[in-house]
Amino acid sequence: MIAPGDAVLVLNAGSSSIKFELFEVRAEAAPIARFAGQVEGIGAAPRFTARDAAGRRLAERDWAEGGAPDSHRAALAAIIAWLDGVLEGRRVAAVGHRVVHGGPDLAAPVVVDGAVMERLRALAPLAPLHQPHNLSGIAAAAERFPGIPQVACFDTAFHRAHPWEADTFALPPEFYERGIRRYGFHGLSYEYIARSLEQHEPELAAGRVVVAHLGNGASLCAMRAGRSVDSTMGFTALDGVPMGTRSGQIDPGVLLHLIMTEGMAPEAVQALLYGNAGLKGMSGISQDVRDLEASDDPRAARALSHFAWRVRREIGALSAVLGGIEALVFTAGIGENARGLRARICDGLGFLGIAIDPVRNAANEREISPPGAGVRVLVLPTDEEAMIARHVVGLLRRSISS
Amino acid sequence: MIAPGDAVLVLNAGSSSIKFELFEVRAEAAPIARFAGQVEGIGAAPRFTARDAAGRRLAERDWAEGGAPDSHRAALAAIIAWLDGVLEGRRVAAVGHRVVHGGPDLAAPVVVDGAVMERLRALAPLAPLHQPHNLSGIAAAAERFPGIPQVACFDTAFHRAHPWEADTFALPPEFYERGIRRYGFHGLSYEYIARSLEQHEPELAAGRVVVAHLGNGASLCAMRAGRSVDSTMGFTALDGVPMGTRSGQIDPGVLLHLIMTEGMAPEAVQALLYGNAGLKGMSGISQDVRDLEASDDPRAARALSHFAWRVRREIGALSAVLGGIEALVFTAGIGENARGLRARICDGLGFLGIAIDPVRNAANEREISPPGAGVRVLVLPTDEEAMIARHVVGLLRRSISS
Repeated sequence: MIAPGDAVLVLNAGSSSIKFELFEVRAEAAPIARFAGQVEGIGAAPRFTARDAAGRRLAERDWAEGGAPDSHRAALAAIIAWLDGVLEGRRVAAVGHRVVHGGPDLAAPVVVDGAVMERLRALAPLAPLHQPHNLSGIAAAAERFPGIPQVACFDTAFHRAHPWEADTFALPPEFYERGIRRYGFHGLSYEYIARSLEQHEPELAAGRVVVAHLGNGASLCAMRAGRSVDSTMGFTALDGVPMGTRSGQIDPGVLLHLIMTEGMAPEAVQALLYGNAGLKGMSGISQDVRDLEASDDPRAARALSHFAWRVRREIGALSAVLGGIEALVFTAGIGENARGLRARICDGLGFLGIAIDPVRNAANEREISPPGAGVRVLVLPTDEEAMIARHVVGLLRRSISS
Repeated sequence: MIAPGDAVLVLNAGSSSIKFELFEVRAEAAPIARFAGQVEGIGAAPRFTARDAAGRRLAERDWAEGGAPDSHRAALAAIIAWLDGVLEGRRVAAVGHRVVHGGPDLAAPVVVDGAVMERLRALAPLAPLHQPHNLSGIAAAAERFPGIPQVACFDTAFHRAHPWEADTFALPPEFYERGIRRYGFHGLSYEYIARSLEQHEPELAAGRVVVAHLGNGASLCAMRAGRSVDSTMGFTALDGVPMGTRSGQIDPGVLLHLIMTEGMAPEAVQALLYGNAGLKGMSGISQDVRDLEASDDPRAARALSHFAWRVRREIGALSAVLGGIEALVFTAGIGENARGLRARICDGLGFLGIAIDPVRNAANEREISPPGAGVRVLVLPTDEEAMIARHVVGLLRRSISS
């Protein structure tokens, strides 16, 4: 059903884009990335780009000549048309999909059939901004690759063993029963980090680790023995620390005030909290940390300062959940690159045993704490697509042997 | 203007109640409480009770015979009528009022005149459930005691020196400018604790302390050198840890979901989050910790467990804000009495230097950490009314000498 040399296509379908990455299955190793790219601007001004595993641009197209893809289906067709030219006889043996929501029960990847699709559709109200697009991607891929397994991998799955205290809000039990829970997200990234620690730092992996996934979306995860115990994102990806354009957690009284006292439409509040808050909203300049660090506008400095403050606060909160930590891991775009911000976040966390070696940090080394530090601080790259590809291969191999 | 032997009346006017406490001014010491009581059920089935400083019941009335007070004004008249019989010639020299909101600028108590009253009325949209009632109490007292100073003391005032990072949400700056800030509340309680530490534990008072005000309303405050640096309550008293009937902080996406996807009215969401969440909502039984501890319903145990988890999380978060702590103080109804909950909250916080001596804790001693502990854990009574009385006397003495 899946064999070395086969290709696994990984898709991440958003509201107006499909990202893809093509992996090659190997016999004794994890699948390896060969090509990646995306169609963005679907329905507006679509643009296709593709690159090889080294990041070299291989293709670019903007359909100025007409015939631009106006749907996920058409965008996927454009991706496949390009892949056909580079597959060189490799068979696409499976398609893996990033799906934001697996609900309360789906704690592992699944092969999507009609019943699973129904179940995933029923979860759409829990993630109306993401789930329907993820499912459009699955539908488009199932149509284009009939008979080929479509595997859904969930951002929520890694968090499904949270203790009840971390999974609930302080609401009447019927809200929990009908699915208003703290699902947590970025699970594929955290799982990738957990596996990476198991492989390279088995002692840390067995202990207590806070992972800060700081990208355009940002959250933190408390792990014990490689399993998620708590996370800063809750029912939605709006909770927790501020992000590129999202507010993160905010006094619920602010929403009630904006809606009931100021008369703001709930849709406008949603647009504000998702799209015009966070680093972009605070600075009025950009959601990109590099732009803010380069700016001499005081709002840019303040936005970064508030971001660092909030992340620091959550490192303290998750350390309390774990009863102390042995390691802090930074990952994702900001976590892997923003040296200045990493140092500011860790400033004042010496009481937890956290310290940053300025030379190591400036050099963006894998380990940025000084030798012998109480808590090891690591910078590890994450790779959600690679995690999906591994899940696809693992699931299909298991389904063969079972 | 104010002299030893004078009386200071302290009022705390809520939506359907007025609480009062009568203090006697002393020459060389803080004002001392003589009588306290309340009219509750205003507008429904009002009931008056009063007690002396030792807590002995002195009066009780339910107006079964008719003529029940149907307004704050009438309730205050009933209070004054009773006080007239016990004042024994003492003059009411001033009235101190607990006012929930002083807005961004009022960082100290003020004598209320027409201009101040206007200013406080303008803040009502920031605390629509409390501020109008507080102001009704001031209006009623000004009418009943013409020419006597009415002093407003604010729950927000103690927090006004928060650094900007703790005072803002991750929203565009115009929201901060128009007052959508993290004001913090329970300030009179925290100030009382800060003064108490200065008097009895000057070394701790000069250091870093987290105070957990756990009552029917609950919040935590991070203090450095006796000043508030951060607090878990934000724009409203709905933020932070769960409370008797309030949810505390909750993913903003939950509010958007309830309103936009489930079609719940914002008023119903507000009623849920303020009145049917927290310990009462989670347990379905009671908001009273004693009831929950006595219950064998698993929901009661779960509600307490979640409460402890959330408070523990915030102790970690505020410790990160302070860069470590020297003391943790429990206060207010739950904090001063719920031994079991205190122990559960502190469980696993050994990494901060926090430990509980089970014998001391069970005996409800003033200091419940073991001798030599890295962080001292204290149980201190709070007294917001006494803080108000001190403010009144201090303010009027200063206004004489200036």
